[in-house]
Amino acid sequence: MLKKIPEETIVRLSYYLRALLYFKEKETPIISSKRLADFLKISHHQLRKDLSYFGQFGRKGVGYSCSKLIESIRDILGLNREWSACVVGFGNLGRALSFYRGFKDEGIIIRAAFDTNENKINKDYPHLKVYPLDKMEKVIKKENIQIGIIAVPKTAAKDVAQRLCECGIKAIFNLAPVKLDLPKEIILKDVDLSCQLTSLTYHLKHLEEKPL
Amino acid sequence: MLKKIPEETIVRLSYYLRALLYFKEKETPIISSKRLADFLKISHHQLRKDLSYFGQFGRKGVGYSCSKLIESIRDILGLNREWSACVVGFGNLGRALSFYRGFKDEGIIIRAAFDTNENKINKDYPHLKVYPLDKMEKVIKKENIQIGIIAVPKTAAKDVAQRLCECGIKAIFNLAPVKLDLPKEIILKDVDLSCQLTSLTYHLKHLEEKPL
Repeated sequence: MLKKIPEETIVRLSYYLRALLYFKEKETPIISSKRLADFLKISHHQLRKDLSYFGQFGRKGVGYSCSKLIESIRDILGLNREWSACVVGFGNLGRALSFYRGFKDEGIIIRAAFDTNENKINKDYPHLKVYPLDKMEKVIKKENIQIGIIAVPKTAAKDVAQRLCECGIKAIFNLAPVKLDLPKEIILKDVDLSCQLTSLTYHLKHLEEKPL
Repeated sequence: MLKKIPEETIVRLSYYLRALLYFKEKETPIISSKRLADFLKISHHQLRKDLSYFGQFGRKGVGYSCSKLIESIRDILGLNREWSACVVGFGNLGRALSFYRGFKDEGIIIRAAFDTNENKINKDYPHLKVYPLDKMEKVIKKENIQIGIIAVPKTAAKDVAQRLCECGIKAIFNLAPVKLDLPKEIILKDVDLSCQLTSLTYHLKHLEEKPL
């Protein structure tokens, strides 16, 4: 049985992985929880608590082996294999996501993009083809795509999400600023860029209000 | 004195705001904490705890007035005024962010973009001009820009961040997958899209491992 693991912990695991790769590159074979936590500006209690959900890592008083912890986190996150994804909406954001190297580095391969605009369809890009929406089902089945990335305008996002689910997609990464109502079994991750950006304005406001 | 408010609470406030705007649009003047929390798939304890950092909202047994809570959250997040931002890096992601309507809706106005590529510079877009990097200081000062959005490749992000700080930027929204080391007084928000996406692969992996 899986323990109930906070979603924040899962996201932080990816940040730990990225930091560990950085330290490994800098030829740091062993790292203490304190140094790793300081680097990421979180508490080392948080780091240790997050990892404790998945087992015992590192040695007390010594630290973590970067290589071993990288391998373990990749295994936990399912990154020791390839995943297939598609992007719906081939505007600026869709294009940015389709060609984003970070996804490929993690084994998430964008197999296809979809758009309604005829000028964008059937164009040849290296390793990517843009299809019309009515090819969605066929392409998703043929390429065995599990992840759908939504980069369409707000008004189209709900319809697109429903179609992706009907085509057998199991997980949706939604960048449209709208709350999707999906069947329970669909894994959904919303990334609303303006919600992230407004946490900056909160801090800016309080910075301005502070006495000098 | 400000209480220490968790960063997650600040981000969730933006999501509450978005949901409240949705309910207000649907002509729901009053909403219970349970309904609002259910809509966002969080616990109503969490919602009430988050709001309690900032005061007393709503009436017990009645709920929140959508309009009043919208106004309060806008005030808390500093969204009852305009903020000026610039985008550095005018590739696909930079263009997507420069023309993202969600930012403008929240009062965050992109005043300028910067790039090193001569083909992208000095082109005219409605309400936006793309400048070469050496105009950064002049434009940031002239337009009184407080927020810098980094959408350059990983290898250029650190230099760009440093230049933005030297030009007097107070807050940085970083989309490059790299950890920036900035002076303490700079407000930094990292949004690493691949870290967000890999939380989906975690759930996909566990979905596949579940017995049918």
